[in-house]
Amino acid sequence: MIKTPYLLFLGDAPDALAAKVAQGIKDWRPDNAVGQFRMVGCKADLGLPDMTLAEARAAGAETLVIGVANRGGVISRAWKEVLVAALEAGFDLASGLHNLLRDAPDLVAAAEKHGRTLHDVRVPAVEYPIANGVKRSGKRVLAVGTDCSVGKMYTGLALDRAMKAAGLKSTFRPTGQTGILITGEGIPLDAVVADFMAGAVEWLTPDNDADHWDIIEGQGSLFHVSFSGVTLALIHGGQPDALILSHEPTRGHMRGLPDYQLPTLEALRDMALPLARVANPACQVVGISVNTAAMAEEEAEHYLAEVEARMGLPTVDPFRQGAERLVAALDAL
Amino acid sequence: MIKTPYLLFLGDAPDALAAKVAQGIKDWRPDNAVGQFRMVGCKADLGLPDMTLAEARAAGAETLVIGVANRGGVISRAWKEVLVAALEAGFDLASGLHNLLRDAPDLVAAAEKHGRTLHDVRVPAVEYPIANGVKRSGKRVLAVGTDCSVGKMYTGLALDRAMKAAGLKSTFRPTGQTGILITGEGIPLDAVVADFMAGAVEWLTPDNDADHWDIIEGQGSLFHVSFSGVTLALIHGGQPDALILSHEPTRGHMRGLPDYQLPTLEALRDMALPLARVANPACQVVGISVNTAAMAEEEAEHYLAEVEARMGLPTVDPFRQGAERLVAALDAL
Repeated sequence: MIKTPYLLFLGDAPDALAAKVAQGIKDWRPDNAVGQFRMVGCKADLGLPDMTLAEARAAGAETLVIGVANRGGVISRAWKEVLVAALEAGFDLASGLHNLLRDAPDLVAAAEKHGRTLHDVRVPAVEYPIANGVKRSGKRVLAVGTDCSVGKMYTGLALDRAMKAAGLKSTFRPTGQTGILITGEGIPLDAVVADFMAGAVEWLTPDNDADHWDIIEGQGSLFHVSFSGVTLALIHGGQPDALILSHEPTRGHMRGLPDYQLPTLEALRDMALPLARVANPACQVVGISVNTAAMAEEEAEHYLAEVEARMGLPTVDPFRQGAERLVAALDAL
Repeated sequence: MIKTPYLLFLGDAPDALAAKVAQGIKDWRPDNAVGQFRMVGCKADLGLPDMTLAEARAAGAETLVIGVANRGGVISRAWKEVLVAALEAGFDLASGLHNLLRDAPDLVAAAEKHGRTLHDVRVPAVEYPIANGVKRSGKRVLAVGTDCSVGKMYTGLALDRAMKAAGLKSTFRPTGQTGILITGEGIPLDAVVADFMAGAVEWLTPDNDADHWDIIEGQGSLFHVSFSGVTLALIHGGQPDALILSHEPTRGHMRGLPDYQLPTLEALRDMALPLARVANPACQVVGISVNTAAMAEEEAEHYLAEVEARMGLPTVDPFRQGAERLVAALDAL
């Protein structure tokens, strides 16, 4: 568990996209972000107060989160100076970079000297159990996609926000690095050893109040041959009561797999639901979440209406329309 | 890749079952086993020549394989003396034990001193790629089970033997520790990090002659919630041309999951085939392998005939009947 609130380190981000992790924190957990730290040449701006390390500490920040991708997989010397100074100033560090903080001897030494913690959220921090499949109390919903990167995390965060706004009990349960940095906890499922994947998901979503919803962040796709095993571990470890189908309608082929076409939403439903019912015979598909970012407003509305009529399920783009109709479908279960 | 042939270390095995890894090597790769090494009190006997370390080296043995389970997860002092002496005598060591050879400082020191290799086959020895899903040449067959431990490895080894006897080209591709020790190579799939599972299976089963069969060892079950993700990675990474359904008909519930019933063979077929066709649209279910060890001869024959009539697929117990009918079905594809 990463201590909040954060100071968001944007480094020398060449554009806004490079700082998308920081943007996610600011969008979804604004209370976690007291300010931003930008270096000379930084082209990203979250609209948060620019703070020095000392100012951010005075404002209560506990952790400096690296909210920016680095180029070439190297933590540069310029970054290092800031990161070491942050440890000296009393910050923990949190990072989702491929190259780990713990592999940098100068950061390890500074962290030890000042009694601070380095969080590499790509690496499992827990010895997860093997899944036991025992039915747990509380309710769970999982987004499953026709492909990777179709908006499953966004859908989950939007569901969580809409549920809380409706006075329902919910917890967003991250299963990837960005989600972990946004909320401060979760499991880096794609880095878990095969035998323990489903057990990690059980660990993440324990017994809860009967009217509480765990919103489990989806990963991969049953139809994406590189990562489908991760998806099935989520379905069986999460034992969801409800599935949301997620889709991006303009994509020409499966992400990274030029020879593979995306399945239809019908094919996704017909594949995912029987698998989910192995772990939870009561599971239902309750709605559809579509990422229409690449469509004009009218085209998007037309598409959503067509899918809703065809599939007989509430169909929304949570970014354009919010997730309220999906929440209503979940609450009606 | 583990150097062959082996001297099989049976230690102080309390019974024959404890030495089942050694038994598997002797049964399936007799040419790999020059002899057995038994300590005082050993109750297992493979019927191989008992050899000293020096005798086995003189007979050409390159690796001492720990073919026995140890009690309590500790490599005892009595074992250690033999293992160190083996390294001194010029053997590599290979083990599938939970507690690793590489974590024993005395073994590491002896291996370094004598220039020998310690093979812990539970631990991946390769950095596997992420799967790319590209169609590979050659043919592949995978056994998928209604449950874990229903005879998928045995089925694969029997297929390999029957194919070779029929003059067909085949390679058994192990995906678990016992199979790796039997053949000297393979991938410990349950220990691979989630993102790389399917890529490890692609790595294991590369392009091959058009008429060559890779016989991929199955793991887990799509219906076993603890390990189903591993199974799906095998299906999608292996892109099999043919599936064999494997079943054990007397089991009361899924292994280790008392609340879960085994699926029917029809349910397994209907779940596995559409998933397999994501990676290989031409995939077919070609036969059924049943472990009837718990049934009397007549009962088994009756059961096999009933399943064959019901499913319309060749149905055999490869242990009782051999795998020839399954090979014929594969060869007819």
